[in-house]
Order: sequence, then C-alpha cells, then structure tokens
Amino acid sequence: MAEDKTINIAIAEDEDFVDPWTVTGKSDTGIDYDKLIKRFGSQKIDDELIQRFEKVIGRKAHHLLRRGIFFSHRDLNVILNLHEAGKKFYLYTGRGPSSDSMHLGHMIPFMFTKWLQDVFNVPLIIQLTDDEKVLWRDIKVEDARKMAYNNAKDIIAIGFDPSNTFIFNDLDFIGQCPAFYQNMLRIQKCVTYNQVKGIFGFGDSDVIGKITFPSIEAAPAFSTTFPFIFENKIVHCLVPCAIDQDPYFRMTRDVAVRLKLPKPSLIHSTFLPALQGAQHKMSASDCNASIFLNDTPKQIKNKINKYAFSGGQITVEEHREKGGNTDVDISYKYLVFFLEDDDKLAEIKKSYESGQMLTGELKKIAIDTITGYVQDYQARRAKVTDEVMHEYFRIRKIDV
Amino acid sequence: MAEDKTINIAIAEDEDFVDPWTVTGKSDTGIDYDKLIKRFGSQKIDDELIQRFEKVIGRKAHHLLRRGIFFSHRDLNVILNLHEAGKKFYLYTGRGPSSDSMHLGHMIPFMFTKWLQDVFNVPLIIQLTDDEKVLWRDIKVEDARKMAYNNAKDIIAIGFDPSNTFIFNDLDFIGQCPAFYQNMLRIQKCVTYNQVKGIFGFGDSDVIGKITFPSIEAAPAFSTTFPFIFENKIVHCLVPCAIDQDPYFRMTRDVAVRLKLPKPSLIHSTFLPALQGAQHKMSASDCNASIFLNDTPKQIKNKINKYAFSGGQITVEEHREKGGNTDVDISYKYLVFFLEDDDKLAEIKKSYESGQMLTGELKKIAIDTITGYVQDYQARRAKVTDEVMHEYFRIRKIDV
Repeated sequence: MAEDKTINIAIAEDEDFVDPWTVTGKSDTGIDYDKLIKRFGSQKIDDELIQRFEKVIGRKAHHLLRRGIFFSHRDLNVILNLHEAGKKFYLYTGRGPSSDSMHLGHMIPFMFTKWLQDVFNVPLIIQLTDDEKVLWRDIKVEDARKMAYNNAKDIIAIGFDPSNTFIFNDLDFIGQCPAFYQNMLRIQKCVTYNQVKGIFGFGDSDVIGKITFPSIEAAPAFSTTFPFIFENKIVHCLVPCAIDQDPYFRMTRDVAVRLKLPKPSLIHSTFLPALQGAQHKMSASDCNASIFLNDTPKQIKNKINKYAFSGGQITVEEHREKGGNTDVDISYKYLVFFLEDDDKLAEIKKSYESGQMLTGELKKIAIDTITGYVQDYQARRAKVTDEVMHEYFRIRKIDV
Repeated sequence: MAEDKTINIAIAEDEDFVDPWTVTGKSDTGIDYDKLIKRFGSQKIDDELIQRFEKVIGRKAHHLLRRGIFFSHRDLNVILNLHEAGKKFYLYTGRGPSSDSMHLGHMIPFMFTKWLQDVFNVPLIIQLTDDEKVLWRDIKVEDARKMAYNNAKDIIAIGFDPSNTFIFNDLDFIGQCPAFYQNMLRIQKCVTYNQVKGIFGFGDSDVIGKITFPSIEAAPAFSTTFPFIFENKIVHCLVPCAIDQDPYFRMTRDVAVRLKLPKPSLIHSTFLPALQGAQHKMSASDCNASIFLNDTPKQIKNKINKYAFSGGQITVEEHREKGGNTDVDISYKYLVFFLEDDDKLAEIKKSYESGQMLTGELKKIAIDTITGYVQDYQARRAKVTDEVMHEYFRIRKIDV
C-alpha cells in the first residue's frame, strides 16, 4: 500500500460513510463528493478534462460525464493518451448479484460503460461476484450462481456488443481459468491482513474468505488474467465503477506496482439516490426505496408519487412564491441521470425553482422519462435468451 | 472450531514445537510424541487398534504401523467399520514441493499410503501445494509449478496404481475444477481470522494468501470437491500424513460438521530424523542433513558415515563395555523406518546395545539398507516419463 493514500476508516460522526458495503450521507443533498475525493485521494473530473475527453474522442461527452455524475478518476489521462496514440486498452467493471432483478441504480455504471465501449471500440470484461454474496450474505453457492445468471441477462439487455464483451461469474469461471487463480495468488502474496484491515475495515472475527476476497476483484484488472482474450499481452485497463468500489482498486494499483504491471485507470460515478432521499443510495434489499428494471409502469408511477422525496413547498401558494429545491428533490435528480436532453432539463430546473412548475408536474415528467427508459429496456431484456447469454460467457478470443 | 481442542501455540520453552512449517525437538531422543498427542487432542494407536486393523484387513500390519511410526489417529475406527461393511472410502495425502528432488523423509507417508491403497483398493488423491510454496517462499508461480511436476514424478515412482490415483497441483487444477473453488469458498465461510490465528499462529502482517490457504488443503478432504471422480457422492476420507499437518485437519473436521459432510479420518506419522540428530526432521533445504532420492551410493555412504549422529561410545573399549544407545542413534532409527525384517532389526538392536556391534558396523548396515532402497526407487523413477505422469494428472472418472 505504498502509493495511494489509505482511507481512514475512523471518520468523524458528521461525515458521510462510503465503503463497498455501506453508503450513508449526512445531508439532505446527499454525499459530499468533493470531500470524498479528498479522503480517497482521487482526482476530480473538471471541465478541462471533459474538454480533452471530447477532443480525443471527437464527439460530445455522455450526459453522465457532462453533468458530473462520473465525477472522479485516477489516471484517466493515461487512457486518453493511449487512445490518441492508437493503442488499445480494455474496460473492466462488475457487479455483486444480490436479488433477482437489478434496479435503476445498478444501470448507471453499465450505461456509461456501454457508451465507453461504443466510443473506444475496446473489449469489455464484466465480473459477477457471486462468491462475494456467498461470503457476505446468508446465500448458498447454488443460489448465488442463479442470481448471477439472472443479473447477467439484465446487464446484457443494456446492449453490450457480444463480439467485444466477456461476462463471467466467479463461482464458475475461477474453476475454468488457471491464469485467474495464479494471478489471485500473486496478488494475495502482495497484501497483508493489516492492509486489508486498513482499507476495508475487516476485523479478526471476519471469515477468511472476506479477507482474501479483494484479490478476486483485483485480478481482472490485469490482462494476464485472461490469456484466451489477450494472449498474455500486457494491456492497460480502465475501470468504470461507482465510487464505493474505489478501495478495491486503490489496493489493486499498489499491487500493480509490485507485480510490474500497469496500474488500472478508474472513472468513478456518484450514486443514484433512493426514492426517500439523497442520504442513501438505491438498494436492492429495499423494494420501496428502489425502482426495479422489472417494475410495471403502474409500480413506477406509484413509487415515485408515493415515495420520491420532494423539494417542493408545503402549499401551492408557498411553492409559487418560494419555488422548489432541486438540490434535494429526488424526481429532479432522477431526470439528471435519465433525461438526456440538456435544454429540456435546464428548462425544468428553471421552472421548478421559480415555483412555476409544481411537484406533481415534475413527478409526472420523472415518471414518464423513467417509464420510457424501463419499457425500452424491458423490450431488449425480453430478447435475452439463455442462448444469447451463453455467447457472452463463452471463453473465447476477442479482437483487441 | 467447536469440537477439537485448539492447539495452544504459546507452548513452554522446554516443549517440542510442531506446526506445519517448523518442527523442533528439545531432546536427543527426538520429539515427545505422547505429549504431542495430548496437546493436539488426537488418539494414540495402541496394540488393540493394530490387532483390530490386522483382523479387518486379514493380513499383518505394515512395519511403519507395527513399529509405532504411524502412532496417532483420529476416527480410524470409522474407516475400519466402513471396510468391514463393504463400503468404500478414499485416501487423500499431499506434499508441498520445495526443491527439485525429494528426500527420504518425504517417502514415509507415501510408502504407507501406497500400502493402504493396496490393502483397501480405494482411490487415492494426492495434492501438490505449489501455491503454498509461492506464498511462503521467494518462489515464482512458474517455478513452483515445475517443482510440483518434478515432485509428482518422484511420488509416482513409489508405485501408486495409475487406475486408482489422481495427482494434481493447485496452481493448475483449481483453475480447472469449479467444484474445488466452490468448496474452498464454503470452507472459507466457516472459518474466521481469529480461528486460523489460533490454529496456525498467523499474524496481522501475514499476507492474505496465507490466511486463506488452509481452505485449500481442507477442500480435498471432501469428496464433493472431485465430481469427476465421485459424481457428487458423499464418500468418507482417510488422510495419512505426518503429524505436523494435523492442524489443517483439526480445522477441516470442525468445518465438516458445519457443512454436514463426514469428518475426514486421520492417521499420523512421526518424522524421519535429520542425519545430525532426532531434534530435527529431515529437511529439503539442508542437503547435509538429508538423504535425497537422487543421491548416489557414494553420497549416501559419505553422508551416513560423516553426519549420522551416533549412539555409540567414544572408544571401542568403552563401547564394548557400555554398549550403544539406539534411542539417539540415527543409523539405527533409519533401520526402524527402512529395514522391513523384524527379526533382523531385533538382532541389530540387541547386538548394538550390548556393545557387540560397533558404530561402523551399524552404519554399514544402514548404508546398505538405504542404498538398496534408493537404488530400487531410482530404477522405478527412471521409467516415469512425462507421458506416464500425465496419466495421473488426467481429470477422469475413477472407479470407487
């Protein structure tokens, strides 16, 4: 753990808490992401970097990047340099399957990853950490594998290019790829118990599987883990992920130095807030806090109308006079994530803050936007058969 | 860690130290094995058990069993009961490859295991923990694998039945068998850091690979780890091993209860002493303390003549008067391990202890016996080609 600043897990009581298992904000406006950048030691994505990004790719940046939802990075310039030099890299992201259906919050890193794949035309590797779920929850191996397959179909429906995307679940793949276990071991040799204790807050009564798990999330960030794809070539990796996964990759970047392999670059997203407010992220374990990808239009409408925290005033008169608060309004926040049209979003913000637009009207726009997104998604999801899925899981050569 | 007594690693200064990595005796006569049985909480193999063993198998027990070299056990009666009832079990043993050639001490558990395989006609699984060597020593993955293959050939030359024996090295096999990783994970979920700290003496500055390694030595003790052999049938396991490996299987037996799988039975051997004396076991890292399986007759002669600690007296006159001490004499101890003829051994003991036989004469018998054993072995070893070896490593059905 030489280079990157180690997260201090003993944070002050009034500070937000963010680790791979818990995200809790202290303010109605949500997590203070600027403070998080300081604490994690990552870099802010500023206007200058977005401009360079747009110049390198020759097109407008994705709205999740323009609007500061992907807000933090590590060594993103290395990736832009490689692309400018005509060199390839690969994308690696993942997910811990935890319930039968994914929710909207899970979409954010994947939506953006798909855009990165389209823009850069590079291989994408998606890890499903079903083993993590066995270790952290009361879930059996067989059930975790089933959840991984269901989640894989949900992910595939986002529209990843099958010729360029390899998906695997740990419980099946680690036992099919000697290079994976060998890299796990190389990583495990570079990291002490004290270090994972410092980074992840593990304790002496944690089971040994948890203590070694970080090596499993680290291994796919090295191209030598996948000889069938990269033929043992050393290829640089970019990890798009939510900021709570950063501790794994701080560790991975330190290990990379020890193993004389390139440090993975990172690009971090904020969290999609829960319906009840921006202090919490959307969670698969609370169905009233989340909009699931298999929710019906009626369910979406009811959830937003009933639960979406409002930044509006108590009476219409007061609202007309003072206007609504978009800093805390969940319907508005969802539009920032899902409404692609910049002009329309700006208009809504102006109208709501001035008091011209009422909460009910704002909620209706949010309902329509999200219902549209979910219905388009469901149409694609219906086409993901077992056969389609198996193609993504097939151990095969991918053109790099 | 519910059932078996946990080893107290804070032992008194005048006590022998035995764990999987270090064996140090305090007395010239070697380790006090009776004390070790008490500390480990295993059972002594007494005359009654040997008689029952002989009755069940219908033949004389192996000299390593008759002479108390296999001296301790856990649930050996369970195995004898199964055999009496016409039910099958399997044998599991292993080795951590640590140098290019194995030495005589490594032979002991394998010699006895071969006899068990012949007597019971059951499948045998041999694990080569090349991953352990990567974690504990300054050895690279590639080199550890090569050592594993060399050691496999040495083991095969003992004469194991190829139709009944499966050999694997962790660095290649774990990545070829999803059931192995899945069982590793199930085990890792049952054992905390505190528990491995108590059992193995791991500390906070140990690398995380060490902390989780016990799950890798435990997994092969469950038949579900090898679906291609056992087709997911629950089959009982007997582990013949040197007593220093017992901590792994104390842990495994506790885990078995949690996983509702049969606890492996164990049969433990003492250590073959180093040439310099019985305080230490023979070690691959000290070539003057050990007789290697590729030593020449001249090397064997020189090593025994030069280094084998003698229980004889300083002058011939004194020796004739007082006699030699077979409790500390290494040449005599080697004969206990390698001279099968009981009458001849008794005669040598009597003659040496009475002072009639001199140290030089005893050493000559030891040299002849061991040279004969090593030369027979080397003739078999010369026939173990890569092709022969690959058959043992082949993932295949074995008749249970």
